Amino acid sequence: MTISGKQLIGEARSAEGSIHFQARNPATGEALPVLFTEALSDEVGQAVCLAESAFPAYRDISNEARALFLETIADEILALGDTLLDRAMEETSLPLGRLTGERGRTMGQLKLFAKVVREGSWVDARIDTAQPDRQPFPKADIRQMHIPLGPVGIFGASNFPLAFSVAGGDTASALAAGCPVVVKAHPLHPGTSELVGQAILAAAKKTNMPNGVFSLVHGRGVDVGLAIVKHPAIQAIGFTGSLRGGKAIFDAANARQQPIPVFAEMGSTNPVFLLPSALTAETAAGFCNSLNLGVGQFCTNPGIVITDNSQQAEHFVESLGTAIKGATPGNMLSEGIKQNYEAGVEALQQAEQVAVKATSQIAEHKNAVSGYLFSTQAAAFMTHRHLEEEVFGPATLHVRADSSEELIKLAASLDGHLTATIFGTAEELKENEALVSVLQRKVGRLIFNSFPTGVEVCDSMVHGGPFPATTASQSTSVGTGAIKRFARPLCYQGFPQEALPAAIKDGNPLGLHRMIDGEIIKD
Amino acid sequence: MTISGKQLIGEARSAEGSIHFQARNPATGEALPVLFTEALSDEVGQAVCLAESAFPAYRDISNEARALFLETIADEILALGDTLLDRAMEETSLPLGRLTGERGRTMGQLKLFAKVVREGSWVDARIDTAQPDRQPFPKADIRQMHIPLGPVGIFGASNFPLAFSVAGGDTASALAAGCPVVVKAHPLHPGTSELVGQAILAAAKKTNMPNGVFSLVHGRGVDVGLAIVKHPAIQAIGFTGSLRGGKAIFDAANARQQPIPVFAEMGSTNPVFLLPSALTAETAAGFCNSLNLGVGQFCTNPGIVITDNSQQAEHFVESLGTAIKGATPGNMLSEGIKQNYEAGVEALQQAEQVAVKATSQIAEHKNAVSGYLFSTQAAAFMTHRHLEEEVFGPATLHVRADSSEELIKLAASLDGHLTATIFGTAEELKENEALVSVLQRKVGRLIFNSFPTGVEVCDSMVHGGPFPATTASQSTSVGTGAIKRFARPLCYQGFPQEALPAAIKDGNPLGLHRMIDGEIIKD
Repeated sequence: MTISGKQLIGEARSAEGSIHFQARNPATGEALPVLFTEALSDEVGQAVCLAESAFPAYRDISNEARALFLETIADEILALGDTLLDRAMEETSLPLGRLTGERGRTMGQLKLFAKVVREGSWVDARIDTAQPDRQPFPKADIRQMHIPLGPVGIFGASNFPLAFSVAGGDTASALAAGCPVVVKAHPLHPGTSELVGQAILAAAKKTNMPNGVFSLVHGRGVDVGLAIVKHPAIQAIGFTGSLRGGKAIFDAANARQQPIPVFAEMGSTNPVFLLPSALTAETAAGFCNSLNLGVGQFCTNPGIVITDNSQQAEHFVESLGTAIKGATPGNMLSEGIKQNYEAGVEALQQAEQVAVKATSQIAEHKNAVSGYLFSTQAAAFMTHRHLEEEVFGPATLHVRADSSEELIKLAASLDGHLTATIFGTAEELKENEALVSVLQRKVGRLIFNSFPTGVEVCDSMVHGGPFPATTASQSTSVGTGAIKRFARPLCYQGFPQEALPAAIKDGNPLGLHRMIDGEIIKD
Repeated sequence: MTISGKQLIGEARSAEGSIHFQARNPATGEALPVLFTEALSDEVGQAVCLAESAFPAYRDISNEARALFLETIADEILALGDTLLDRAMEETSLPLGRLTGERGRTMGQLKLFAKVVREGSWVDARIDTAQPDRQPFPKADIRQMHIPLGPVGIFGASNFPLAFSVAGGDTASALAAGCPVVVKAHPLHPGTSELVGQAILAAAKKTNMPNGVFSLVHGRGVDVGLAIVKHPAIQAIGFTGSLRGGKAIFDAANARQQPIPVFAEMGSTNPVFLLPSALTAETAAGFCNSLNLGVGQFCTNPGIVITDNSQQAEHFVESLGTAIKGATPGNMLSEGIKQNYEAGVEALQQAEQVAVKATSQIAEHKNAVSGYLFSTQAAAFMTHRHLEEEVFGPATLHVRADSSEELIKLAASLDGHLTATIFGTAEELKENEALVSVLQRKVGRLIFNSFPTGVEVCDSMVHGGPFPATTASQSTSVGTGAIKRFARPLCYQGFPQEALPAAIKDGNPLGLHRMIDGEIIKD
């Protein structure tokens, strides 16, 4: 596989534009081979129209064929071998172990979605049988199932070049739902993006998918992304990135003549509450480790840690400070991300009533940064709302509450986050029921006694949460629940058996769990 | 029960404002007793804050208690007896039979939601059990269920003073989900609204619900509604009404600091496709009946009928014209609705390439109107997009397609609608697979051989559809699926058994259908 630097418009390649860019190794600043061409809005239009033309065929293929497509994508990604891993390392300077693990996660995700598609019950089939003799009016035969929305636009994330990028969770769930996908490659890893895009196209060809089921376009600025969002044939958006980027897309999607749903995961600060028994050196070590994973560039990075004002809390903060001083965060994914991080750190340094407790060592890479531990009081935190904002990187803010009432008040003052974590004993958790009750309203995932980094891909995961964590708190972007984001219910009334989709035919030919006259059964 | 004309702010009554209004009998223009006071934004704030304070308690009551509350609302509505029916007749001039039927539907809806709440599986409980020995990382115990969003604002509809108003489908589904409700009464039936509001409050008291679980405010203009939408404690909106009203609420909700979901059902034109065998006098009689139900003031009213250009189609149009000429539509729900209808009819009369085929008789009531049959060709319909817009009332537009290709093209050109209907034989339906395939993308409900009016309240109903039919095509506002609009998934990771909600505890104490390690079972 070679990298062309062109848009992948279905099976065709196109580079009509005159704006070019190169990827850079973030650890060295070195420009990497291949000149990428930004997509013209015409090329975006071609990709979307091809997706639209592929939709009826792709929507109607069998579950087995669609599952096989997803599994073949996983195989083709693996078949890229070192070509993919080498390029990803150059573009992100993430270590090989991390990228190999992330590749495994990406493939696992595709295979899990294939399993869900093959099993088929995710369409939530419901049948209400006719009652022709009902008084005063007969009841018609009514059946419901979920159908795919249509072409979906997806924005790859910077910080997971594989698992939340071109063939990541958003693409896997949209393809699983039956939606063709147009991906905007993240400009920080365009070569990795093209290689994965080629793998998807190879899988599409091998499994006879319609041309247009997948396209990939490049762009560094906002224009290419907005061209996708504004195209009338696009029916939903999947996005992982910043609050600013996600909110701009959300606003553009709502300003369309036909507004469309935007599933934007925009990160969060993931408050961690430490109850007294958890104020230990062991927790501090674990916290420091979680904070520095991926140089803090995870949306579940623990950016706030809340304790009481005890002596033990002081000891914990000292231990955490010592751990952070001893750490050497690597380099960040780009100069821009580094600058944003440093601006965030600077704002905390300048903030009233916020003290710097510890600063880490700094590595000798181009975009290396220091980790930071800041500290403040709950009253100050609640007064200065910007202290709650995400600083994307290895910085965390310790917040000290003077009483359990103040702790609850602080929790109640929080905005939406992806996660909240509580460390303590089961007894302490019981004593803090009120805290749990408040935090339920703030997040998509409540964690007890483990750190928020590490998001399991499974049926029960919720990677989501109230705004500003996401624009769609009723959904998840990780786990099999993510499929439903790209589907909607359709109901058939009075249709003859032979005209119904298999999922809602009599005799249950697909062997699904279905709701029949109010009972969930596998009939 | 007497009507006070005041806001019902939980158990308190309030009328601090200085703007007053009266309801009018639409058939006579007569002003009806009781002066209603518009809510001040302070009063709206009190209602929402009381809802917010009631939320933690209401959220945490047992399924049985919540089901009993819903059933008791139904009982209390019935207990209002003739007081309710008489006032509703005065305010709407709808016939007693219709209102009695609608009351039954409203009560049936509440009882169906009670059944769903009592059974409990709607929360979609999912459990992934821990795998402490998994390599390379242990898998945590992760569990998911749906939780209520918080206080919900609901806007009653003009055209269903009971079933889509104060205790209608939106309120029933929000209360079922566990959300307190603040209703803005529709100003065309404020007395009916207050009576039903009193019934809800009586039920809340009898079943020991927290004060604030329900409030009702009055307002004729947009201010009271916008005060609800903009209040930071409101977490979702349910709305049934016009495109203009729904879109304004949608835009206001998205402009909030925290955008919130808006489930606005904004009506549609419900195209009816007649295949050759259905071009009969019988279909014409049925169509005319459906068109005139509720004086055409149903969101599923058949506003467009599409045929081929055959001789039989001409005969059908003649029969339909004769039927319409013989009909005498009653009076509309208000002078404003009548004026809007007449403006819509006037626009069709003035439209190029549109002919008036028939006009009905006119009754001798104040707001009586004529029914209309217009006719045009597919090419004109596709050129002049305004011909697709809803004319709320007993007018319909016949569209003639010159070929089956043009029929498909016309279907593909349609905007989103609540329903599309096909009449014909099973063989004709099979021959028109391409039409079905196109219409799937346009609507929430596809109907074969019956008219779109009459929306069954059941598990498989979808009363929804792509924009502009609704602002939330992934939901339904009728049927038990409506509950999910007011809930979101929350996931618990690593929680001890005693700290988990009952729905996701080991041993399945609530007896739910749950997904355990990927299998849907009642464990």
